[in-house]
Amino acid sequence: MRSKHGGNIYEVAKKYGYEESEILDFSANINPLGVPNSLKNAIISNINSLVNYPDPNYRDLVKAIAEYNGINEEYILPGNGATEIIFKFIEALSPKKALILAPTFSEYERSLRRVKCTVEYFYLDEKNDFKLDKNRFMESMNNDYDLIVLCNPNNPTGQIIDRKILSSILSKARENQTNLMVDEAFIEFVDSEELATMLEYIHEYKNLYIIRAMTKFFAVPGIRLGYGITSNKEIISSILDKREPWTINTFASMAGRVLLTDKEYITQSKDFFNRERKFMYDNLKNLNFIEVYRPEANYIFLKLLKEMDSLQESLIKRKILIRSCDNYINLDSRYFRAAIKDRNSNNKFIKAMKEVLYES
Amino acid sequence: MRSKHGGNIYEVAKKYGYEESEILDFSANINPLGVPNSLKNAIISNINSLVNYPDPNYRDLVKAIAEYNGINEEYILPGNGATEIIFKFIEALSPKKALILAPTFSEYERSLRRVKCTVEYFYLDEKNDFKLDKNRFMESMNNDYDLIVLCNPNNPTGQIIDRKILSSILSKARENQTNLMVDEAFIEFVDSEELATMLEYIHEYKNLYIIRAMTKFFAVPGIRLGYGITSNKEIISSILDKREPWTINTFASMAGRVLLTDKEYITQSKDFFNRERKFMYDNLKNLNFIEVYRPEANYIFLKLLKEMDSLQESLIKRKILIRSCDNYINLDSRYFRAAIKDRNSNNKFIKAMKEVLYES
Repeated sequence: MRSKHGGNIYEVAKKYGYEESEILDFSANINPLGVPNSLKNAIISNINSLVNYPDPNYRDLVKAIAEYNGINEEYILPGNGATEIIFKFIEALSPKKALILAPTFSEYERSLRRVKCTVEYFYLDEKNDFKLDKNRFMESMNNDYDLIVLCNPNNPTGQIIDRKILSSILSKARENQTNLMVDEAFIEFVDSEELATMLEYIHEYKNLYIIRAMTKFFAVPGIRLGYGITSNKEIISSILDKREPWTINTFASMAGRVLLTDKEYITQSKDFFNRERKFMYDNLKNLNFIEVYRPEANYIFLKLLKEMDSLQESLIKRKILIRSCDNYINLDSRYFRAAIKDRNSNNKFIKAMKEVLYES
Repeated sequence: MRSKHGGNIYEVAKKYGYEESEILDFSANINPLGVPNSLKNAIISNINSLVNYPDPNYRDLVKAIAEYNGINEEYILPGNGATEIIFKFIEALSPKKALILAPTFSEYERSLRRVKCTVEYFYLDEKNDFKLDKNRFMESMNNDYDLIVLCNPNNPTGQIIDRKILSSILSKARENQTNLMVDEAFIEFVDSEELATMLEYIHEYKNLYIIRAMTKFFAVPGIRLGYGITSNKEIISSILDKREPWTINTFASMAGRVLLTDKEYITQSKDFFNRERKFMYDNLKNLNFIEVYRPEANYIFLKLLKEMDSLQESLIKRKILIRSCDNYINLDSRYFRAAIKDRNSNNKFIKAMKEVLYES
């Protein structure tokens, strides 16, 4: 794959002659509590299970996901990371015209273009802190759209869309015979996740498709596990009929149950992010020369307000890697995204930011 | 996925009320030497690397594959198992009309139908032990075919196609502007692999696509790793441009180098199969009531010659699972495939076969 994402410390290490391990990677939004011990132990105990093919129906995995979310097993499509699910839903829905946010995660547009869908943008307004304006959005909805894709909280801006707004959009979408995909890859990081997720609408609305990732919250981007949720069982069925067998590896298929029942890790992580999100925001918001948008997930979105050499370049010289947002539509080289990490790393980031902002 | 393959001991265990571990699984063709220790150690030592995204370009993996095969890195497309590569090559080539063997591995047809390709069959002749007849095959080739798919050694029949025949087919295919895909998923098991593989033609023939699996020979169906080889770099490029990022997990991406340089495991496995293949064949070929085809890979293809209740059912009562081949085109319920396993298991299989053949 050749598109640009955070997390590519391999390229950066090579370019600057660093060891990968030397770089403090704020470009990928991964839970700094690290790979849960429960999963490490399960992998080590079950290492010989690699000798078997995974269950092609992934029954245990589907059951674990269903129990965790309190929904019907038939509504669940497990996948090789959330991106496989995005691609498969879009391939199966095969929309002719779609509406996505600008800025937002780049893989929606990539998978839409792959099925030759016309993509239109809803431009989030900087003046409104890149929050979604209900009235303006509802006005932009029309019968022409086969699909609307929203990301909640949005990546890279970190803003939540209020559920009241989402439910109005969902309802109008159904009237318009428009499908609505809501990517909740970062929802577990949100304070009051249960007030943010669209799960409760899944049974009633067959036009709703929710995307979930295990990658970010459980700190396992390497294992490749995510899932989709919809009560449109025909779509799940048609995807299962067409897709390659065994896209999910044995450890990932095992990881579902292990991670989703690791209550200690889940609680610790939620407490951790409530604390560190506030710490990062409080320490950055009053710095001169940057605008800091209040974060709702595990990353913080920034705008550089002064003319200077690249912020990213200045930080990488201090072995800190952040995500430049210049390749997002509706953003430019003044915008950046940084992960929220452990306190020690966050302090280094804040210190480095002060240095590069005030010294240059 | 809902198609039928070997290896689904999950269904069988559930149906018969067995533990999965109780069943001797001869239905999946996996090297009985098991998951190489080199890989187990590498996974355990690198378990924390799950916290990072895999390198999206999988450079180390591609390099390891290139070195192992002595070819250009640019010719290699790594994938989530050989099946991802089959699907991606076929999607990218988008053939209108294709020729495949009957019988052969079912995923070729599945992936061809997915792109709405017309599929025609070359019926392998039982009278010729299901070997490919050169003259008849060459006559059946015509300009209408965009793609020919061959499996070498063929699954489930276990027969090798002579390389002289393959090179004639390849050359005529190029004249006809037909692409040729050769699935070498089982090639490492073949005695004199270097005389069987089509690798040496890859540079000269841009219409050649080779499929390789790590699954079978290295006993890691759970890790999901395979690769494709072609000198048609435009096709690789177009696949990389369109596919989801990170279809290969961290452990699989690491496994390439570890496994392909594990010379001890490779040598041991080759010696083991030369010995056990002969042992199985010698012990089965003289049994009454079955026809046994001389195996070239790590499985043995059988035809039941007497009227009896299902051979598969009779064996599963003895907790031995074989692969019924009744869902292959050009085969029926008299045909079976059984893996070649360790000596102890092979002896149990031979004993059970004698019992069910002679007692019923």
